[in-house]
Amino acid sequence: MNTASREEQVLERIERVRRRRPKLTEERVTLAHGAGGKASRTLIEAVFVDAFRNPALQPLDDGATLDLGTGRLVFTTDAYVVSPLFFPGGDIGDLAVNGTVNDLAVCGARPMHLSAAFVLEEGFPIADLRRIAASMAAAAERAGVRVVTGDTKVVQRGKADGCYVTTAGIGALERPVALGESQVRPGDAVIVSGPIGEHGIAVMIARGDLDIEADLASDTAPLHDAVAALLDAVPVRMMRDATRGGVATVLNEVARGAGVAVTVDERAVPVRPIVTGACELLGLDPLYVACEGRFVAVVDGDHAEAAVAALRRHPVSEGAAVVGSIEPGPAGMVLLNTAFGGTRIVDLLVGDPLPRIC
Amino acid sequence: MNTASREEQVLERIERVRRRRPKLTEERVTLAHGAGGKASRTLIEAVFVDAFRNPALQPLDDGATLDLGTGRLVFTTDAYVVSPLFFPGGDIGDLAVNGTVNDLAVCGARPMHLSAAFVLEEGFPIADLRRIAASMAAAAERAGVRVVTGDTKVVQRGKADGCYVTTAGIGALERPVALGESQVRPGDAVIVSGPIGEHGIAVMIARGDLDIEADLASDTAPLHDAVAALLDAVPVRMMRDATRGGVATVLNEVARGAGVAVTVDERAVPVRPIVTGACELLGLDPLYVACEGRFVAVVDGDHAEAAVAALRRHPVSEGAAVVGSIEPGPAGMVLLNTAFGGTRIVDLLVGDPLPRIC
Repeated sequence: MNTASREEQVLERIERVRRRRPKLTEERVTLAHGAGGKASRTLIEAVFVDAFRNPALQPLDDGATLDLGTGRLVFTTDAYVVSPLFFPGGDIGDLAVNGTVNDLAVCGARPMHLSAAFVLEEGFPIADLRRIAASMAAAAERAGVRVVTGDTKVVQRGKADGCYVTTAGIGALERPVALGESQVRPGDAVIVSGPIGEHGIAVMIARGDLDIEADLASDTAPLHDAVAALLDAVPVRMMRDATRGGVATVLNEVARGAGVAVTVDERAVPVRPIVTGACELLGLDPLYVACEGRFVAVVDGDHAEAAVAALRRHPVSEGAAVVGSIEPGPAGMVLLNTAFGGTRIVDLLVGDPLPRIC
Repeated sequence: MNTASREEQVLERIERVRRRRPKLTEERVTLAHGAGGKASRTLIEAVFVDAFRNPALQPLDDGATLDLGTGRLVFTTDAYVVSPLFFPGGDIGDLAVNGTVNDLAVCGARPMHLSAAFVLEEGFPIADLRRIAASMAAAAERAGVRVVTGDTKVVQRGKADGCYVTTAGIGALERPVALGESQVRPGDAVIVSGPIGEHGIAVMIARGDLDIEADLASDTAPLHDAVAALLDAVPVRMMRDATRGGVATVLNEVARGAGVAVTVDERAVPVRPIVTGACELLGLDPLYVACEGRFVAVVDGDHAEAAVAALRRHPVSEGAAVVGSIEPGPAGMVLLNTAFGGTRIVDLLVGDPLPRIC
């Protein structure tokens, strides 16, 4: 038996284990259930998808595509619990606006209207709330959206952590594009819109968890212009912003959803040296670290260079790069060709190395 | 000077004070900022309306009416932090669905799509989460809506109180109705859709704050069918569900928004004896106690009886009653003709007698 076929057997065995429908065995919620990885997926599938079963929810995309008879919309929501509330490059306010804007954008919609709901802890400084509201307003202005409705609740001291924000958003699907994992096919190229992991590491540094001082800002930014430029330039199969769980989580969703393999060239993935260094200190792989202004796109392989060129014309995606490709198999797998010449499997995250990053 | 003109002078003086633009003087968030009364309004106007200024937000209605070019929609959101999570007649799950369904309905829209975002405390029992999800699903089914998108975040132990839920909703404005405080005019009738205050008192009893055992369930229920029946039957000026702050808060919003007086006949307001009794123990006026399945409607005065008849055909509003009328002045005032023959002003709530009621 040669090395290749032994490797295939091992991969097949791993794949069988990974294909098992995840079972929710815990009796209590853990931080890992909020980390965007395996535990999150299991919780969502076992509790929410099961309860709310309907065709619009089923794809578990960043937003739901709805046909209201009069036009197609995308509808999305995200809760924000980032700690600290203020960090280099942003705060919970612009994070909450940009995050929802980006979820709408990567679903192919033009972001239009946002709602904002606040859960405030008794004693939270009004000055901080004003700062958050101002930063939300500025982010909305930049993204061309309006915060049109909202709600505010207050809980007793010790029943929250200052301020939690939940935004929901509506966008109009004006382009006749079909996007999603089902559109992905072998031969497609995988693109990342810029250097990864900066949001997660900036928050970790702000938290003081890393005993380093570094000039690193969160990448939080609205992606709608870059996304529109990409859609205008080339045939796009799917897009997703690489937030909680990072690029690795998105690629796993692509591999599983499309029944393909994703191969990634580690040397091609844009990562700033400071992120690489901080990740080494933390024992983390930058592929799993959250971005808040980067997205992954799968595009027709013949148009990969044109896609990158279109993205590079926008400041928010000037660091775009082709990082890998779609292969027929092993289905459901993300394989990383490492800088050292080896290949390793990049799986969904287990546990939560970076709680409350967004 | 006769008694009447002296009374008018007093009312005028009070009115001048009440008309002053509210100033946010506190430096920290208090529970009163979440109570739906004066402090809430001041916080929202001083912080959020100021930051997010736009025409759709400005009316501070339960939802924003949006014209997307292809059709008119209503968009709304609410955060739910009720304690305890489970109470007689409901739980945070059906409360979150019914609340958003009702906000859409009273804006004249057909409720269609909901989002749900969860902030969970580490250690929260999965069994409780399943129960909440199941009750949301059942409420969605009853109201004919779908939960199409969502998000789940987890915070450390001690940074939340089990589970907070934020729902947002989209409804289609299919009727050519113009609703809102600006439509209200003297001669209109004020209707309440059923006995008031049951949600608030049921939660207080469940909390053990009242040392009584009573067979009282929350009134949480979807109002869309009753609202549709009312809109089909008579000319409706405006509707609002009487949640946080109760019927008194809605009537104050009407009086201020429309620049009219609202007179209410205390004996006409439907209140179950157990709610009256509990309110006496708590030193509360039932007019300020939250309902989660009741709404206030202002209708053409000539059609008041037809409106009540239409509502009474639906189980959720079989206790509907005309409780008062719209008068030209004193503008901005709600005046209660008490059971004892006197008249008193019913103002916006100061402070929060019932924190975390929804």
